[in-house]
Amino acid sequence: MSETDPCKICGDNKRNHDLICVVEDALDVVAMDQISDYSGVYHVLGGVISPLDGIGPENLKINELLKRLENLKNAEIILATNPSLEGEATAMYIDKQLKAVKPDLKITRIGRGLPIGADIEYADEVTLQRAMEGRSEI
Amino acid sequence: MSETDPCKICGDNKRNHDLICVVEDALDVVAMDQISDYSGVYHVLGGVISPLDGIGPENLKINELLKRLENLKNAEIILATNPSLEGEATAMYIDKQLKAVKPDLKITRIGRGLPIGADIEYADEVTLQRAMEGRSEI
Repeated sequence: MSETDPCKICGDNKRNHDLICVVEDALDVVAMDQISDYSGVYHVLGGVISPLDGIGPENLKINELLKRLENLKNAEIILATNPSLEGEATAMYIDKQLKAVKPDLKITRIGRGLPIGADIEYADEVTLQRAMEGRSEI
Repeated sequence: MSETDPCKICGDNKRNHDLICVVEDALDVVAMDQISDYSGVYHVLGGVISPLDGIGPENLKINELLKRLENLKNAEIILATNPSLEGEATAMYIDKQLKAVKPDLKITRIGRGLPIGADIEYADEVTLQRAMEGRSEI
């Protein structure tokens, strides 16, 4: 997907290479990189686990992520797969795999809740539940 | 809005009266109460601060909320106004007012981020920013 290898983002020495945001596909990198104060790098899985489509963990770049972690200390892995059934399952699977290899690794999941401009009155139950669970002190 | 005073929810002794979810209007109570494991009560503001519509803090039930807190210990106030400009401003205003009276009060804001079923690729920048800020350890 990139003209250079490593890509521009990974080749940028000003970025924090200990902070890796794991996303489903390359277009998610474009979206996530709009966040102005994110200074980490990305790892593109190339999809999500989806048995119905015949996509298993072996089809995703999970081993490559494990390899990438070998030389890192104090890394944080942000699991930013979509908040869909497949995305959640894939995040759980990767979390388990990473913890089996590196039990002390900091693994986080992006916040799920009400999007900006949403109306509580029309929000679905699961989103409200996540927003309640994800509440934080002001 | 209720046939009884106090309403059925506030009259329910099985509920946790130390946990108060502050919402904009009565319909938000109906929506929030779909969350199966929420056992607290609600406080309806009756709107949000909106200078363009001539609605100031004095038009909302903020003093009533302060009165309600007088007899509570170890209370948690969940500010569940909508994640809109007015909703955020109202939450900030109430937070300030409450902290001025009760500095030790636990005040939380509902989680904002990606709703269930959303696609990161199509999410807006602010929602992604909030999802990143609101990430939590698995």
